[in-house]
Amino acid sequence: MRSLSINDADFAQKFRRIVEDRRESGSDVAGQVASILRDVRSRGDDVLVELTQRFDQHTLSSDSDWSITPGECKAAFDGLDTGLRDALQLAADRIRTYHEAQLPEDRDYTDDAGVRLGARWQAVDAAGLYVPGGRAAYPSSLLMNAIPAKVAGVKRLAVVTPTPKGAVNPLVLAAAHIAGIDEIWRVGGAHAVGALAYGTGRIKRVDVITGPGNAFVAEAKRQLFGVVGIDMVAGPSEILVIADGNNDPDWIAADLLSQAEHDPSAQSILITDDEAFSRQVEDRIDVQSSMLATKSVAQKSWQDHGVIIVVDELAQSIALANELAAEHVELAVEDPSPLFDGIRHAGSIFIGRHAPEAVGDYVAGPNHVLPTGRRARFSSGLSVLDFMKRSSFIELDEAALRAIGPAAISLAEAEGLPAHAKSIESRLK
Amino acid sequence: MRSLSINDADFAQKFRRIVEDRRESGSDVAGQVASILRDVRSRGDDVLVELTQRFDQHTLSSDSDWSITPGECKAAFDGLDTGLRDALQLAADRIRTYHEAQLPEDRDYTDDAGVRLGARWQAVDAAGLYVPGGRAAYPSSLLMNAIPAKVAGVKRLAVVTPTPKGAVNPLVLAAAHIAGIDEIWRVGGAHAVGALAYGTGRIKRVDVITGPGNAFVAEAKRQLFGVVGIDMVAGPSEILVIADGNNDPDWIAADLLSQAEHDPSAQSILITDDEAFSRQVEDRIDVQSSMLATKSVAQKSWQDHGVIIVVDELAQSIALANELAAEHVELAVEDPSPLFDGIRHAGSIFIGRHAPEAVGDYVAGPNHVLPTGRRARFSSGLSVLDFMKRSSFIELDEAALRAIGPAAISLAEAEGLPAHAKSIESRLK
Repeated sequence: MRSLSINDADFAQKFRRIVEDRRESGSDVAGQVASILRDVRSRGDDVLVELTQRFDQHTLSSDSDWSITPGECKAAFDGLDTGLRDALQLAADRIRTYHEAQLPEDRDYTDDAGVRLGARWQAVDAAGLYVPGGRAAYPSSLLMNAIPAKVAGVKRLAVVTPTPKGAVNPLVLAAAHIAGIDEIWRVGGAHAVGALAYGTGRIKRVDVITGPGNAFVAEAKRQLFGVVGIDMVAGPSEILVIADGNNDPDWIAADLLSQAEHDPSAQSILITDDEAFSRQVEDRIDVQSSMLATKSVAQKSWQDHGVIIVVDELAQSIALANELAAEHVELAVEDPSPLFDGIRHAGSIFIGRHAPEAVGDYVAGPNHVLPTGRRARFSSGLSVLDFMKRSSFIELDEAALRAIGPAAISLAEAEGLPAHAKSIESRLK
Repeated sequence: MRSLSINDADFAQKFRRIVEDRRESGSDVAGQVASILRDVRSRGDDVLVELTQRFDQHTLSSDSDWSITPGECKAAFDGLDTGLRDALQLAADRIRTYHEAQLPEDRDYTDDAGVRLGARWQAVDAAGLYVPGGRAAYPSSLLMNAIPAKVAGVKRLAVVTPTPKGAVNPLVLAAAHIAGIDEIWRVGGAHAVGALAYGTGRIKRVDVITGPGNAFVAEAKRQLFGVVGIDMVAGPSEILVIADGNNDPDWIAADLLSQAEHDPSAQSILITDDEAFSRQVEDRIDVQSSMLATKSVAQKSWQDHGVIIVVDELAQSIALANELAAEHVELAVEDPSPLFDGIRHAGSIFIGRHAPEAVGDYVAGPNHVLPTGRRARFSSGLSVLDFMKRSSFIELDEAALRAIGPAAISLAEAEGLPAHAKSIESRLK
């Protein structure tokens, strides 16, 4: 953990280092991923069989080795205890409601020149969702990826997920049932992403791929950007908590640890105007983390990437927050409004003392797939727009072309494109 | 040029080959670009000086070697002949009006559970626009990239453009004046894109990079996706004209050539239900193209990539158009409505006999930066959204947390994330 004061002589330099430190995967992964993708593209299912055997010790032979049916998902859902089923359902309902209001409106109008103009939004035909296996097999993540796609109107939703030694996570299947997933393929890794992008004998190709994964999965998506649409290059999770001294240090410690327990590369940052409070939080982190089942991950993340910054006044935190452009920002202060107004770059903002980031992970409604690694400067959380695209349209009659066509002819000629000019001229003769 | 009939025995196979043929840059470029980007990142301006000398024979030494001032842009604008100035201004005004209506609305509401939820859109701080030099130095392209950024509210707009042997294009400078560009840097190529993404001594880094360029520029943008936001991986331009036999073949020939004259890799496709008409169009293409100043490019594009498909009924063209997912689609038919309704994948659609694609390139208003290479299946033309990002926000008081928090605790425990659960539990004690 690094401890900084805004009054340190070398504060600017140290803070710059924190901002620049992206904690991304190295380029050694890039070469391996490129080779896997080439292989999947040329040899299809055979490569999936080989790599699934090697990485997951799972043999893809019969249909049930390859995929999990909607019936199995329903059975998993029915088998959950009531409390968990209700919790999943509440989460799904709230996520759906929030995302339904994101649906964009079409435009269609005729302007003063007589030109009909507009834009029409439509869903992509098919989307693929990556769902990690093992520790990071989160049903909440499946809901957060699948529901916006369904709300957008995507007809075919295919999940790929590794099932190491054949093990499946019933909670993930239950979430797939709630979300209405059409296909679940028992493959993971960069090769599964390649299969979704290029298609194989078994798996038909999709148009958009979303969902979290390890460094190989993230790199595969990055390399396939343009072949398919992808949601985002995602890095390790981050939280920035801005807190005054009147918080319960236990609450703030838990918030910082909730991010740290995700991943040893995750980053938790506290900015406060109260140095004594910052030491209390540090103590509570030590105590709490020692009791967590996720202790080793949380402690490693906090040790390696945790940061506490003490400022003179909370107003100074605005500029720092905008430099950090963090995935999650909590405003645990008496009057959050001035901070909220000043923050330009953040994935999601949690306002007030009773808004721990964890509610946003599950049940608040907004998407928990958010830009990491300072990408909130230029990108947004996952939304229905990631599963839709817009076609513009233009209709003219002869009068409308006569009104605006001559200007286009002038510009086409000036740009040295005579066929452009002729295509308009010939219609105005 | 390839000529197909939907009744050919091997039609499906031939059509598939046309769909799959992406005409993209090879991966040999990828390695060179990666090395240039690494170099720019570590050595900054020195690399720009070296490569600008090598590729553009332009020496970057004094300030005026490096950049073009807003004053010079204004002088270029004032120096244009009135007709051209008015045409540029009409184009800018119409583009601005269309894009202003794209500005997204913020959301801020409190739901039944007492949870305040919302989304706030804000512009990125800075955007960089690539403007090609030489043949493809199009002022229209500068307007189409810069105006949406300005409408979005971007404070700093930096253009990079190569000026081979020091030559600048007055029309591009005039467009920069109209669009309100803040900085113009006289560098081009992958190194210029790298400078925008990473920043150098002279050029401050930006958050989003848009604009067309050659294969090196496109590959640089692709590799930098995630370091900055980019608009799109752009390939050669395409048009699909769906035309019945009642069109003037001269008009349709000019439309096909207007795409072909852009680039030897551009693709023009005609689908018609009238074989005799298709032969007339072919003849008119031969005659017209031989008279064009852009003859060599247009003829090569048409020879290598042109396609004519004859169908039995125009309704069959809908499925073909959706497979092709072309950048531009013209519907030059008696009743365009059924075709328009059926087309799901297209960058921009031009409706009716008096809507040649060239009006969309300049003055119609919608953006002419559109998805190519079948990417209209999953992506959209450039818009103000490419220069903005959305932060979600969540505010709860104790009662609201009591309403939805317990479900989040259940899910966090089921996912094995105890600090998540504790961050909520400790607030509900």
